[in-house]
Amino acid sequence: MHNVQVNGEDILKRQLELAEANRRLLEEKRVVAVSVMGAIGSGKTSLIERMIDRLAGQGLHVGTIAADSAGDDDHQRFLSHGADSINLNTQDDCHLDAHTVDHAMEHLPMDKLDILFIENVGNLICPADFPLGTANEMVVISTTEGDDMVRKHPKIFAQTDILVLNKIDLADAVGMDPQRVVSDYSRINPHGKAVLTDARHEKGIDDLLEALGFECTNTQ
Amino acid sequence: MHNVQVNGEDILKRQLELAEANRRLLEEKRVVAVSVMGAIGSGKTSLIERMIDRLAGQGLHVGTIAADSAGDDDHQRFLSHGADSINLNTQDDCHLDAHTVDHAMEHLPMDKLDILFIENVGNLICPADFPLGTANEMVVISTTEGDDMVRKHPKIFAQTDILVLNKIDLADAVGMDPQRVVSDYSRINPHGKAVLTDARHEKGIDDLLEALGFECTNTQ
Repeated sequence: MHNVQVNGEDILKRQLELAEANRRLLEEKRVVAVSVMGAIGSGKTSLIERMIDRLAGQGLHVGTIAADSAGDDDHQRFLSHGADSINLNTQDDCHLDAHTVDHAMEHLPMDKLDILFIENVGNLICPADFPLGTANEMVVISTTEGDDMVRKHPKIFAQTDILVLNKIDLADAVGMDPQRVVSDYSRINPHGKAVLTDARHEKGIDDLLEALGFECTNTQ
Repeated sequence: MHNVQVNGEDILKRQLELAEANRRLLEEKRVVAVSVMGAIGSGKTSLIERMIDRLAGQGLHVGTIAADSAGDDDHQRFLSHGADSINLNTQDDCHLDAHTVDHAMEHLPMDKLDILFIENVGNLICPADFPLGTANEMVVISTTEGDDMVRKHPKIFAQTDILVLNKIDLADAVGMDPQRVVSDYSRINPHGKAVLTDARHEKGIDDLLEALGFECTNTQ
């Protein structure tokens, strides 16, 4: 992040303080929060929908915060899967920040929730600088974007310990090699876990939940 | 754009002045510049590669400015197609601005160029606020991102008169309806032209060149 001071206040320091306040609130309320970052159209919403279904099937209460520049497409999808959801339109802002998330949580039934998915605005640059105070973070890209996504955005991948490569079923059709993404990622983030998914056909969802630390028994 | 003042200077006004200076330089040098915005991994680079090949085949001299957060993947691809290219790494910045483009042009053989493609950083929010001074602008999305891209990012589509929907060959595989994107776009931008392409299989490239005002004779 740029070292930006506004009226003498260090923006980065203030963001860290706000994120820490969110972290304390989430711990107090015993809500496991997951920050879901990723490319536009990479399948963040579809992956969250699949995880909502599985977690709700375990009797867990799931909340969502859906952020987009405009519209409420994702929010409506989460509602239709039974999540308690808040829609956020960031307009000209290309990312969520901890303060916005704090306000969204004021409108969610935090005492009831077990899990909170926070879907960020779709891009791989801006969200990297704004910690939200969640226990878990993941970043989603998809095979159709090509095999150069990690090399082009090293910062967000270096600091996020779960990479989800979605639309794995389309890798052959677009002539991309998933292994190239996985090896770029392991070079830049040796401790990170790469999970391959196909949200549309419900593949890899249990692997993703496991990487996030959820234990899910497949009841199907 | 947010109304931001830095040291009393209006940032938006300054950007418009810098863009105007670029426009004058491009006119003086008789270079037709095209600003290529769009989603991450939507196929901006592939589309430019195809256009370079066709335009070079007409004896035209093509330059490129390749912008990414990090790396030089796109720049190397343009060089391999014979373009005069400059690589720009924007790091934490999610967009190009007119001043950066001005500096890039100082390193290009502007007296020789006929056409200059400026590939912006991949996202649909930040570049909307920063005019570069080009004669043409286009914004690229792809079918695999879903049919909600225009609704989620109304600003960039309302102000950009060419929408390219790429990877049209994959629409069925991901279950999306291209017509939905086209109709969202025509509602938000009645004067805009929507062009459907499949850069990988070289479909729709002549339509795109025509939309950009280039007359290309197919020599194949």
